[in-house]
Amino acid sequence: MSSLPPVRIGLLGLGTVGGGTVTVLRRNADVINRRAGRSIEIVAASARDITRPRSFDLTGVALFENAAEVVEHPDVEVVVELIGGTEPAKELVITALENGKHVVTANKALIALHGNEVFEAAHRTHTMVAFEAAVAGGIPVIKATREALAGNRVDWLAGIINGTCNYILTAMSDAGREFDDVLAEAQALGYAEADPSFDIDGIDAAHKLTILAAIAFGIPLQFDSVYVEGIRHISRADVEYASRLGYRIKHLGFARQGTEGIELRVHPTLIPSRKLLANVDGVMNAAMITGDAAGPTLYYGAGAGAEPTASAVVADLVDVVRALTGDPENRVPHLAFQPDALARIPVVDMERVETAYYLRLNVVDQPGVLADVTRILGSGGISIEAILQQEPADGASTVPVVILTHGVVERAMNRALAEIEALPQIHDQVVRIRMEPLA
Amino acid sequence: MSSLPPVRIGLLGLGTVGGGTVTVLRRNADVINRRAGRSIEIVAASARDITRPRSFDLTGVALFENAAEVVEHPDVEVVVELIGGTEPAKELVITALENGKHVVTANKALIALHGNEVFEAAHRTHTMVAFEAAVAGGIPVIKATREALAGNRVDWLAGIINGTCNYILTAMSDAGREFDDVLAEAQALGYAEADPSFDIDGIDAAHKLTILAAIAFGIPLQFDSVYVEGIRHISRADVEYASRLGYRIKHLGFARQGTEGIELRVHPTLIPSRKLLANVDGVMNAAMITGDAAGPTLYYGAGAGAEPTASAVVADLVDVVRALTGDPENRVPHLAFQPDALARIPVVDMERVETAYYLRLNVVDQPGVLADVTRILGSGGISIEAILQQEPADGASTVPVVILTHGVVERAMNRALAEIEALPQIHDQVVRIRMEPLA
Repeated sequence: MSSLPPVRIGLLGLGTVGGGTVTVLRRNADVINRRAGRSIEIVAASARDITRPRSFDLTGVALFENAAEVVEHPDVEVVVELIGGTEPAKELVITALENGKHVVTANKALIALHGNEVFEAAHRTHTMVAFEAAVAGGIPVIKATREALAGNRVDWLAGIINGTCNYILTAMSDAGREFDDVLAEAQALGYAEADPSFDIDGIDAAHKLTILAAIAFGIPLQFDSVYVEGIRHISRADVEYASRLGYRIKHLGFARQGTEGIELRVHPTLIPSRKLLANVDGVMNAAMITGDAAGPTLYYGAGAGAEPTASAVVADLVDVVRALTGDPENRVPHLAFQPDALARIPVVDMERVETAYYLRLNVVDQPGVLADVTRILGSGGISIEAILQQEPADGASTVPVVILTHGVVERAMNRALAEIEALPQIHDQVVRIRMEPLA
Repeated sequence: MSSLPPVRIGLLGLGTVGGGTVTVLRRNADVINRRAGRSIEIVAASARDITRPRSFDLTGVALFENAAEVVEHPDVEVVVELIGGTEPAKELVITALENGKHVVTANKALIALHGNEVFEAAHRTHTMVAFEAAVAGGIPVIKATREALAGNRVDWLAGIINGTCNYILTAMSDAGREFDDVLAEAQALGYAEADPSFDIDGIDAAHKLTILAAIAFGIPLQFDSVYVEGIRHISRADVEYASRLGYRIKHLGFARQGTEGIELRVHPTLIPSRKLLANVDGVMNAAMITGDAAGPTLYYGAGAGAEPTASAVVADLVDVVRALTGDPENRVPHLAFQPDALARIPVVDMERVETAYYLRLNVVDQPGVLADVTRILGSGGISIEAILQQEPADGASTVPVVILTHGVVERAMNRALAEIEALPQIHDQVVRIRMEPLA
């Protein structure tokens, strides 16, 4: 591993995302260092009330109530702005850049409304500004659009990019409930703010669409050009009618390049029920980006929350550290981790892997066979989740029996199947297919 | 825009992916240059038969039947290896690196089996090797795992990473057909090779899982440790039983870090039907990667084919060009395109945007109302796709009518709705929600 000194960072804001960032940087310090080639050390942070007790570890972090002190701190090389809103965030970020510090920010309003100024300051001062966390939380939709689709002319993009709206519409659809009712619940659960207007009237989604569309189509940031409609007027009845017609209602940010120009719009939208985006539910986010070469691509994950957003903040930090550190020819390690930091973790022998199983047996239609099979499974410690037994087809002497088991190690299953296949009433090999809940 | 000279590349192989790469680089030269900051020029290419007529434009490209001539070509700065297989690809790639040329490759077998040697050569010669196209075609799953999830300890990953298997299992499920029957069709359509063993016995998926797992968990490439099972033994009956039990069968690459070590396995798997991965159908690919901070994330798109694979190849080329060119502080432009290359494309006024509509009207239950409504829509050039009319509730004087329309510009809809809302039999404002097929 590298013997370079740590990269020292300062956090502005110790709220939800600030706390998540501290937690992730500390808990995953090992893998982060092995990927970045240097450790990342939090040396300073600002918060409105620095005396408040917090659930995360701030050992070694100099705390300030005045955010400007972090921005001016001589030890801070990278400023992570997590206070949100445009003021004082804009002034703090630009001052940080002017002080030669790189900036990572999760602030969508700042980038959507003042990104051009921020980028100009970064360009002028030869510093980096990274903002993956500003759009769709832990989903790398900026990196995907900006780097992975660089060979494409983007045809259109559509995103479920506000978790509050998606939570409300999903609950209206799944439980047949009314908007006001679900909104109140979302507020109680912390999925919606006390003043929910920013989310449910579409402003937040419009900020994110502004950023995504600029990156996708190579146009300036232009929040004022976005058509914005929220979800207050959607009733339970609309959700039900849509469902009967084969659609689900989702609140989408949508951008498309056509012959007349670019469409930029945020509004509730009927989507055919079988499309993947129609099945992105609850607070989850997703964006579909369609390029002329790649075709449709989709990116899905948690769009908000402490740790998912911190995941994007830390990814930006690692990008900054890699750019600061690596020889440019090997900016990103081939296998993600530095070559001298690969781990020799053993690969588990398949016999010791535990999964649930689907078994299909061809059984002679005689009394007692099923009892033998279940006895063998039971004495092997294999418990049964479901059995599906068919009537024998006319004239058939055997009948298929399908068994779903709970989780068991492969070795135990191998033994049980050998015993079962030795029964005279079992014809053919037992078909076994492993099951994964993809929890 | 930059006045730097073009980056000159040489292609090894002009087959499906080679042709796609030429096509995409030429068709999208404008947007690629605006993103990369330099143009990319194909100066040389190799093919088994250079006299064969081809459907893409090779003007200005020096053609060689001996691939070594491209690797040795003095004008070539980046070699794009698209011949596949381990020999002679391995020797050509290592020679290219030793000649100081960067390499972009789509070759999963090469990376899975000989990646360690290739990376060592790159390290020794201070050159870059990029291989996004080696896993899941146009889906940026390597970039996502290697960069975007850098802050995470990866818990597990599961991928539908072989399009042939997914096509066959989807057809067996949707059409209730047998394996052999669908395989023959897939071969006729070009989704399966004449010798399909590489795909349907799981080798191809195991190559890709080897690469993904190394990147996700920070372990060496170790193809020989992967447990591999194909789909030949899955029958139509299994697909049907699984469906009745609430599952779909998918061929998955699966890796998980547990207390005993890492599970690396490729096999058919039952997945609960409502999970997103269970709904990735046909030749499409997807990977779900779950990190301790980000939670579950999913990446979906075309896993093979000329242009989707070319999309990943070109993304790697742009990464290489940006690393070669940019000051390291601004490796990737903030808004993807170079700051002086943003376009002033007009944003379309919402009145001129065309969508289909869902309309809900509250109508007095009298004869003739629906005739009035449909007349107004018709004279506005708005055609109707479906009408859903409810019986009035007991004692209710109005009845809801839901209409789905075909596509129409917003201005025409605004006019028609104003006229409809002026009808005395229409109570309340008409609810309108736009529809997008997400084609």
